[in-house]
Amino acid sequence: MSLIKECSARIARLQTKLQQSELDGALFVYPIDVYYYATRQNSTLWIPAQGEPLLLVRKSFARAKEEARIGDIRPFPRSKEFAALFEGQHNIGLTYDVLPLQQFHYYNKLLPGRNFSDISMLNRELRSVKSPWELERMRYGGAQLSRVFASIADVLQPGMREVDLAAEFETRLRRIGGEGYVRMRAFNQELFMGLLVSGTSGCSGGFFDGAVTGLGMSDASPHGASTAVIEAGQPVMIDYTGVFSGYIVDMTRMFVCGQLPDPLQNAFEASCRIQNRIAAEMKPGAICSELFEMAADMATEAGLGDCFMGPTGEQAKFVGHGVGLELDEFPVLAQGFDVPLMTGQTIAVEPKFVIPKMGSIGIENTFAVTEQGGEKISVLSDDLVSV
Amino acid sequence: MSLIKECSARIARLQTKLQQSELDGALFVYPIDVYYYATRQNSTLWIPAQGEPLLLVRKSFARAKEEARIGDIRPFPRSKEFAALFEGQHNIGLTYDVLPLQQFHYYNKLLPGRNFSDISMLNRELRSVKSPWELERMRYGGAQLSRVFASIADVLQPGMREVDLAAEFETRLRRIGGEGYVRMRAFNQELFMGLLVSGTSGCSGGFFDGAVTGLGMSDASPHGASTAVIEAGQPVMIDYTGVFSGYIVDMTRMFVCGQLPDPLQNAFEASCRIQNRIAAEMKPGAICSELFEMAADMATEAGLGDCFMGPTGEQAKFVGHGVGLELDEFPVLAQGFDVPLMTGQTIAVEPKFVIPKMGSIGIENTFAVTEQGGEKISVLSDDLVSV
Repeated sequence: MSLIKECSARIARLQTKLQQSELDGALFVYPIDVYYYATRQNSTLWIPAQGEPLLLVRKSFARAKEEARIGDIRPFPRSKEFAALFEGQHNIGLTYDVLPLQQFHYYNKLLPGRNFSDISMLNRELRSVKSPWELERMRYGGAQLSRVFASIADVLQPGMREVDLAAEFETRLRRIGGEGYVRMRAFNQELFMGLLVSGTSGCSGGFFDGAVTGLGMSDASPHGASTAVIEAGQPVMIDYTGVFSGYIVDMTRMFVCGQLPDPLQNAFEASCRIQNRIAAEMKPGAICSELFEMAADMATEAGLGDCFMGPTGEQAKFVGHGVGLELDEFPVLAQGFDVPLMTGQTIAVEPKFVIPKMGSIGIENTFAVTEQGGEKISVLSDDLVSV
Repeated sequence: MSLIKECSARIARLQTKLQQSELDGALFVYPIDVYYYATRQNSTLWIPAQGEPLLLVRKSFARAKEEARIGDIRPFPRSKEFAALFEGQHNIGLTYDVLPLQQFHYYNKLLPGRNFSDISMLNRELRSVKSPWELERMRYGGAQLSRVFASIADVLQPGMREVDLAAEFETRLRRIGGEGYVRMRAFNQELFMGLLVSGTSGCSGGFFDGAVTGLGMSDASPHGASTAVIEAGQPVMIDYTGVFSGYIVDMTRMFVCGQLPDPLQNAFEASCRIQNRIAAEMKPGAICSELFEMAADMATEAGLGDCFMGPTGEQAKFVGHGVGLELDEFPVLAQGFDVPLMTGQTIAVEPKFVIPKMGSIGIENTFAVTEQGGEKISVLSDDLVSV
C-alpha cells in the first residue's frame, strides 16, 4: 500500500468521525497532527468533513510539494484570502490540548464568528489505532532498537559513569538511523532519547510522568543519565526510545555488573510476570483500567505494592502507554481509563519497581493489540543481562 | 552570588514590571518559565506583583523541595483550595505564546471571573538580558562546545555519512556533560541537538526557521544529518548547540576534505566579514533591525544577496537570534525588530549563504552584548578546517 493510499485512508477515517460530530472540518496546526495526514513542513491543514483537504504551507513550500501526500497544496495565504477559503465553514475542530492560546487567537481573528471546538480526544483516539503500514514501520523500529540493546553490554563495566554508557547507546542508535527527537504531547513533559539510571539514581522522584526519572545532568534537565558511577551489583536500567520514520518504540532492559541482590532479582521476576500477564490479556475489548488494576494487584501479591511504578508517595497510576508518532499516545493502561482496547493499538507495557535505597528495576516492551493478545514489537529476550 | 540570590533578583525584576503593568501577578505554568524562577519539577508558579512567590508542585514534590530556590513550596492543591490561595488577585498574567488552550480553560475554571492577560513579551524581554551568573554558565557552555568543535576534524574523512559524523559529534558532547535536549519556544519548531549538512544537503529548504535545515533521516524528522555521503571538496557545515545547566550556546563551523571551490570560499569570507562587523556593532542601543539590514547590504555588495540566509525564495529575514534557556530567545536581529540591544543580551550571530547546487556555508558564534561590542562566548577560531 502506497503512502498516498495510507494517508487517504487516514483522512477518510477522520472524515467519518467529523461527520458524526457534526463538524464542518478539522483545522490542524500542530506539527505532528499535520504530519500524520500530510507533511512535517510548517503548514496548516484543513480537512473538511467532506471533500478534498487543503494544505497551506509556510515553509518550505518546495519541500512540502515533494513530500506531502495530498493534492491541494498552496502557499499560506494573506488574511483576506485565508478567510475566503473558509466561506460556509462554521463548525471547526482544533486540537485544544496542544494549541497555544496565541495561535487560537490568531485563527479566531482570521476566521471571525466561527464555532470552534475541541477535537483533541477524537484526534488521539484515531491515531491510537495503527494501520498495517504503520505496524510495519514500528516493527522495523523495534528491530533496530533491539539491536542496540543487544549490543550494549560489551561496553558496560563497573566504574563507568551513567552518561558514558548513555552516550554510547545513543550514538549506536543514531548510526543505525535513529532520529533522536522524541515527541511528547503532554504539557510539561520532555525526554531526551531515554533514561539510563543505575543504583540509587533510580530512586529519585522527578517531573517525568513515569515510574523512573533519573537524576540527569543538572536541575535544568533533571531526567535520564547523570555522572553517577555504575558499581558492581547495582541495577542498571536502560529505558530508551527508538525513533524511525517518526514512529517511536519504547523498551527497557536491565543490566548488572555481577549479580543483583535478591530483593531486586525478585522484583525483576515480578515485573516480567506482570508484563507477560498483561501481554496475554491485550486483546480487543479488554478494559485498560482493569489491566492496570490487575498489574497493581499482582504487585501487591508480590509484596511490592508500595514500590510499584515509582517511589512510595509518588507512584504513577499506570502500567502502560500508547506509543506511535508521540511517546504518550492513547490508550493508557491506567486508573480511570475505562475504555476497551482496539486491534492495532500499540502500547509500551512497563511494570517497574523502585526499591528504596537499592534502585529501580523492571521490564518494558512495545506490543500491538491483536485477537491473540499482545504482539511483541520490540523482539529481544527480556532476560536480565549480567556482565 | 548564590543561586537563591540570583533567583530573588530575577523575581524582583519581574515584580517591578508587573507593577508597571498594573497586574496583580504572573501565573507561570510552562516548564521553562517556571524553571527560570524556581525549578524544572512539574509545578505552577505564582509570582505576585508584591510579596512572596508560591510554588505549587505536582511532581516531584520531594525533589522540588530540594531544588527550588524559593521559600513557599506546597503540593498542588485541590480546586477549592487553589481558588482560596488567589483571593483578591484579579489581574493575572499568563504566557499566551506557549499556553495550550486546554490549560487556559483549566486555570480559567479554577479562577473564575479573573482578568487574564498575555505577558509573553514581558517574559521574553526579561529573559533576554542575562545576569553575570548566567553569563558565567554560558561561557562554560561555550568552552565545552568549542572543545567538541576543535576535536571533531580527526574523524572527518571523505566517504563517511553525515549521520556518522553527527553521531560522533553528539556522543562527544554528551560525554563532557551536554544535556542534549534543546528547548525552542516557537510553535512548530523543533531541533535535535544541531544540524550537520554536507554538499547539496545544505541547499534544501525546510520547516526550520533558519538559513539551513538539512535533509534529516526521514520526512518525519526532516532536519539535520542524513545518510548522504560526504565527498571531497564539499562544504561540511556543523551547526550545533551545547546545552549545559539548561543554557544553550549555538555555534557553526565549516569543514572540508581537501579544498573548497572558489565561490564557496568567497562566500565563507563574506560571512566572516558580516559576522565581525555585526560583532563590532553589538553595543547597547544598536537597533536589531538595522544590524540585519547592514548584514543584508553587505551580502548584496558581495554579490550574494540572493543566497543570503536561505535558498532563493525561502530566505530568512534575520541574521541572529537570542539564546539562553531557549534556542529562540529575544532579541532577534531581524527585519522589523526595531528595538535597541541591551547589555547582557546573548545572541547567536549566523550569517550564512546557500549556494545553489554547491551547498551551504557560513559562520556562527554566540556573543554577549557589551559596551565594547559583542563578547564572543563560543571562543574558538572561526577558520575553515581542511582535512
